[in-house]
Formats: sequence, structure tokens, C-alpha cells
Amino acid sequence: MQSRESCALADQQDPLAGFRQQFAIPEGVIYLDGNSLGVLPKTALARSQQVIAEEWGNGLIRSWNSADWFALPTRLGDKLASLLGAAAGEVVVTDTTSLNLFKALAAAVRIQQQAYPTRRVIVSERDNFPTDLYMVQGLIEFLQQGYELRLIDENLSLEQALDEDVAVLLLSHVNYRTAYLYDMAAVTDLAHRYGALTIWDLAHSAGALPVELNAAQADFAVGCTYKYLNGGPGAPAFIWVAARHQDRFWQPLSGWWGHQQPFAMSSDYQPAAGIRRFLCGTQPIVSMALVECGLEIALQADQALLRQKSLALTDLFIELVEQRCGAHPLSLITPREHARRGSHISFRHPQAYAITQALIAAEVIGDYREPEVLRFGVTPLYLSYSDIWEAVERLRQILDSGSWDKPEFHRRSAVT
Amino acid sequence: MQSRESCALADQQDPLAGFRQQFAIPEGVIYLDGNSLGVLPKTALARSQQVIAEEWGNGLIRSWNSADWFALPTRLGDKLASLLGAAAGEVVVTDTTSLNLFKALAAAVRIQQQAYPTRRVIVSERDNFPTDLYMVQGLIEFLQQGYELRLIDENLSLEQALDEDVAVLLLSHVNYRTAYLYDMAAVTDLAHRYGALTIWDLAHSAGALPVELNAAQADFAVGCTYKYLNGGPGAPAFIWVAARHQDRFWQPLSGWWGHQQPFAMSSDYQPAAGIRRFLCGTQPIVSMALVECGLEIALQADQALLRQKSLALTDLFIELVEQRCGAHPLSLITPREHARRGSHISFRHPQAYAITQALIAAEVIGDYREPEVLRFGVTPLYLSYSDIWEAVERLRQILDSGSWDKPEFHRRSAVT
Repeated sequence: MQSRESCALADQQDPLAGFRQQFAIPEGVIYLDGNSLGVLPKTALARSQQVIAEEWGNGLIRSWNSADWFALPTRLGDKLASLLGAAAGEVVVTDTTSLNLFKALAAAVRIQQQAYPTRRVIVSERDNFPTDLYMVQGLIEFLQQGYELRLIDENLSLEQALDEDVAVLLLSHVNYRTAYLYDMAAVTDLAHRYGALTIWDLAHSAGALPVELNAAQADFAVGCTYKYLNGGPGAPAFIWVAARHQDRFWQPLSGWWGHQQPFAMSSDYQPAAGIRRFLCGTQPIVSMALVECGLEIALQADQALLRQKSLALTDLFIELVEQRCGAHPLSLITPREHARRGSHISFRHPQAYAITQALIAAEVIGDYREPEVLRFGVTPLYLSYSDIWEAVERLRQILDSGSWDKPEFHRRSAVT
Repeated sequence: MQSRESCALADQQDPLAGFRQQFAIPEGVIYLDGNSLGVLPKTALARSQQVIAEEWGNGLIRSWNSADWFALPTRLGDKLASLLGAAAGEVVVTDTTSLNLFKALAAAVRIQQQAYPTRRVIVSERDNFPTDLYMVQGLIEFLQQGYELRLIDENLSLEQALDEDVAVLLLSHVNYRTAYLYDMAAVTDLAHRYGALTIWDLAHSAGALPVELNAAQADFAVGCTYKYLNGGPGAPAFIWVAARHQDRFWQPLSGWWGHQQPFAMSSDYQPAAGIRRFLCGTQPIVSMALVECGLEIALQADQALLRQKSLALTDLFIELVEQRCGAHPLSLITPREHARRGSHISFRHPQAYAITQALIAAEVIGDYREPEVLRFGVTPLYLSYSDIWEAVERLRQILDSGSWDKPEFHRRSAVT
């Protein structure tokens, strides 16, 4: 039976407890939305001043060389690689997740046109994060080559969806709503047995749990630095391409930063060797430089310990909700099985929207997701066992008192 | 005959002279590269602290609503519109110039497939900024629908290039190397008479001279905020789409930010009405917020006065070089005619690279462009007549003394 005291004790024994002090988290706030926007590393403000006042203000154009802005996408990519079970030279930090997905899709589709010229199916799942599906739809609609998007859902399993027509399998490693975690190695192996290439969206796994892209023999991956990697709002995303695929096709977003010699100013595109060909245009340097602050912290943490703590915290969350909020119609939609669970916890409740708003007013910041889902990001790097206790306690108070049922908590915002 | 004194006098009479104090420009530097990376607005540092410490650090995920991050791309776009002869609702600030060009190209190509199903030619020019050509090549290669890129060059004039096979004409308003300025209205009219749609790259004109997109009846435009608009290194770019075209096609980089209801989490893409459908993924908020600092300054300046000063400064530059450096093999490649001249000045010289480096060492920061081009950005918002005098004086000293011929000035950097 968990108690406030048992949580405090767990905090005393937590080998990762020290990481919290590397972040500036507002006093009193219990932040359970690090899977949507990570918190502020304390080093970020000074770093931004350096980039803005010194590198931009004083260095001006010279900083492309002197501050090595030119190498930022690959330098950050190399650092990030070690969190993804990838090697240096396989990752660049650049653009947005959606755009990187388009590059991966386009490359995968074209590689497959050589291997299996008639395959025209891209498999994903109906419950995938919508932008992933939208990018596939955009590509299909534009290509007009008879491609179709086949969606896994309650009527079609992954095994049923895979056949000899499938060119590409695109999945989120961890589902943004339920936190369902795929077995990347097993699914990749299954896809390969059908001759399909895999693209993994790591938005909800990179930085949250160990990812092993090369061990899983995955083909492509994309993801986000502004969630568990604490890179800052809308910070540039990343793309990983298995070394064996990098030089097989030049992706169509072929801007000058992906050119072999960007400053030769040739009128013909010649893709750079390796991962640089997945770059396109000039990157937002201030936002990108801040990615390094969050990365530096993530790189200090033992990934196995992080995973262990994440599971302990989400176990605790489930246990406390069941112990203390059992009278309310909350139903867990996150897998109980550790091997299938990411690092957030979601419950359905008919009044999930208003409850989320009431929780935010009580400084427990989670978020709402359609339909009727209360979602709580559980970030082991800066959350404590006591935070989880306190969050569930405030949830219990809101539910028991019915204080969520006020007009202001039902009003919808632009971004929900 | 110009002299140091006549330049000082011109500065005293310059109605725009006060703008310089709104920027932090390093003491002693004469910055002639504002057409590559603009200078630092003094408000940017405080704004970055507000965004990082308050909006990100304290507001966290709530800032999407409370700090209205959600509306940044359109809010900045609406402000920028007035500098482009465009209306509110026609511009978004987002992504990179290369990516926005891909969206414009894709939309233009598809609109034309309905009007003229057999047209398969995209016209641009060999001397266009390379990334523009690379993006066309990427699109053509990926589509595999028989499109071809036809390039204007010394053997093929614009008039010769246009015919009934042309779907799209893509030009830079001001050439990045020579500063040649197209007559946007006349060229657009010519293209339209052949049934072609126009895409204008405004990278070297937005913020430097009056742009009149709607008056010219242009179709699409893209451009950059980090040059004459002083938005910061790699700051997000912009795209303008004539209102009459916006709803005709959903461009293929169709991420969730371009969806009608991004947070409904529907699995089907439904493009937002209007310019929002040219958005794709989550934007780098810190870099994007800083764009507003430069924009605010640009919006205070009278565009006609700005143009007048730009021409006076480039006239002065040409005159001084001819007066004072006449013994050296510098040849002007920028048009003398005002109506055909943008806001930079370029000279060829067989040792342009080493001379550029020697000038930078003497704190006159211009840049080098292949082949053998010394390029000097002349930004009327913060340069003075005396700056031009001093720049040419240092150039003269370097040329007369031959001090450019040192090993360190011949060594190539990653970014030249």
C-alpha cells in the first residue's frame, strides 16, 4: 500500500533524483506534460545569450565558421545517436518531425520501387499521431502513382495488414495517446520478412526509454527533441537513416544544405554522402543551439536506470489512482505490461476535458487528448515519487468534490 | 566628386540615420553582409529571455495558448505582408525558404495540371540561387511525370524560354550574386500571357526594397527573414500565396499544423482554409519569436525612403570604387540602372576570395561568392554614407598594398 511516506522514502533512494536540479521548474507546479513540451534546462538561458549576443550580435556571419553553426545538425545528431542505439553519422537534427517523415517516406518508397516495382501499400495505424498519416496522404496524393495507405485498427491487425503489396511500414514506437510500446525488433523483423521497410516515429520514446535502432535493424526513424529531450518549444526534430540506406536515394526535399558542396553554387544537385543529404535549408540556429542543453543532461543519465524509474513511476500512478480514485469512472488505456508501456499514463473519463483544466488550475499540468483522454507524461529525469503522490491526491480532490464542473473548465482553447 | 566630408554631410541629412541605434552592431565593424545574415535588433535579447524564461520556463505547455505561440506564423505573416504589397491572411512565417519553395512549386504544378494537363516545363535561370534549382530537381526526380527544368542563361532569354509548354516560372526577384532586379509586374504579365504561373523568391528583396506582390498579380512567393529583415541566424522563412490560389490545392507537405482542426486528431487530412494550409509541423518558437524584433523595426521605416537611400548608397559605392580603386581589375557585375538594381554591389576580381578575407580581417565584412565575386550587402536601415566611404577606403588600401596576398587569406573555410 503506497502512502505519502513510502513515496518520500522512494525519493530518498532514487539514484536519479539529482537531475531535477538541472531544470528550472516553476515552484509548486507538478509538470506531467513533458511528453508534449519538456522543461527548461537551467543552462539554456545563458546559452541563448551567448548565441544571440556573442555569436549573432558580435560574430555575425563569421559565426557560421567560428561558432561552427555549420556543423550543428550533425554535431547534435552524433550526440543524440547514442540515446537511440545508433552510430555517429546516422542522425541529423533538422526541420520538423513531419518534414523528416516526408524525407524518410520518400526515400523508402523510392528504394522499394527498385526492389519491388509493383508494391503500392504504405501501412500505418489509425491511432498513429495524425501528422504521420497526413504526411503519407500528402505524399500519395501528390505522387499519383497508385499508392494507398492501409491502416491497422480494431478490424485489421498488424499481421493481417502485412503482405506482398506492402512497401513501407510506418509506426510510432510509443503511441501518443495510450503509450502502447511496440517491440521494435520483433515488428521490424516481421516487416522485413514481408520485404517491407520500416519507419519509426520516436516522438514519444526518444529520451524516455532506451531505443535500439541498429540492434532492431530498423530502416528509418524520425522524432522530436522538444518532448523528453527538453530542447525547447518547437525545437528542430531529427532523422535517423540506417547507414546501409543513406546513399541509395536522394530525398526530394533536396535543398542546398544536403548538397555535396553547398558553397560551390553549382546549378546541379549532387547529394552529400551519408546523412547530410537529409538536410534541406538553413536551420533556426537559436532554437537549435538550445537543443544541446537538454541533450547534455540526457546524456548524463543511465538509460537503464531511467527506464526502471519510468516504470516505477507509472506503476505508482496506476496503483494510486486505483487505490484512491476507484469510485470514479476512470479507465486506464495504457498497457499494464511493462514491455508494452511507454512513459505516460492515460485514462478515459467522460469529463476528461474539464478535469484536465481543473487539474491545470490546481497546478497539476497534464493534457487532454481526443476522445475523452486524460494524459499524464511521466518524465523520470525530473519527476519524483512524491510528485506522483501529490498529483493523484489533487486529482482525487477534484473528482471527489466535483470541482471540475465549472464553466471555465469546459471552455475550449485554441490548443487543447 | 565624393569625399569623406561629403559622406559625413549626407549622413547628417539622412532621415533614416536614427534606425542604426536600434541595432547592436559591433564597434569598428563595417557590416556589408546584411544580405546574408542581418544584424541584431537591440530588443532581441530581452525578447529571448522572455520567451525562454517566462513563456517556456514558467508557462510551459500553457504558452501555446497564453503566449499565443499557436498564432505566431500567421501573426508574423500578417505583419510581414505590409512590406510585400500583400494583405493579411496571405503570408505565413514558417519552415525554410527551400521548403516553402517546394510547397509553392507543388501547388503551382498541380494547379496547372488542371488548367493545362500536358505542360511539363518549369522555367528558372542557371544563375538563380542554387537551392531553388535543387528543390525543382528534387520535385521533378521524385514525381517522375516527365517534368523538365528549363534554364535561362546567356544562350536562352526569358522571352525565348517561355512557350506553351511552360507550367511555372520561378525567379529570384533580386539575383543573389549580381543584384539584378527583375521587373516583377512586367515579367509576371509576360508569364501569364503564356499561361504560366509565377513563383518569386524574395530572399534578396524583402526588407531591402518595396515589393508589390498583389499589384504585380504574382502567384506565389517565398523568402527569408534572416537577411534584410534581421530575424536572426536561420530564422524561419515565409511563403505568400495569392488569395485566388490558396484553396485550389493542398500542398504535399501536409502536416498537422495545416489541418483544419489540428487538435481534433482526425486520421484524415482536411486542409485549413487559406494560408494556414501552407504550414506543416511545429515551429521553432524561440527563433520565430525573434523574427518579430527585426520586423518591428522594418515596419517603422518608410519603404520609399529606404529604397532611395539604398540606391544612393550603392551609387556611392560604385562611384568611390571607380574613383579610388580604378587601377585594379575590379569589374562591376551589378546593374548600373536603378530600376534593375537590388541592394547589394558585386565586383569580379581574380583574387576575390583572398581580398574578401583581407577585408574581413580589416573589419569590413562582405562575402565571397563563386566565381571570383566580391559581394557587399548595402542595408539602408543601418549603414551610413560614411560606412561606405570607409569600406572603400579599406578596400583601396588592401588593393594598393597587396596585403591580401597572405596564406591565411587564401585558406578556405567550411562556409565561404
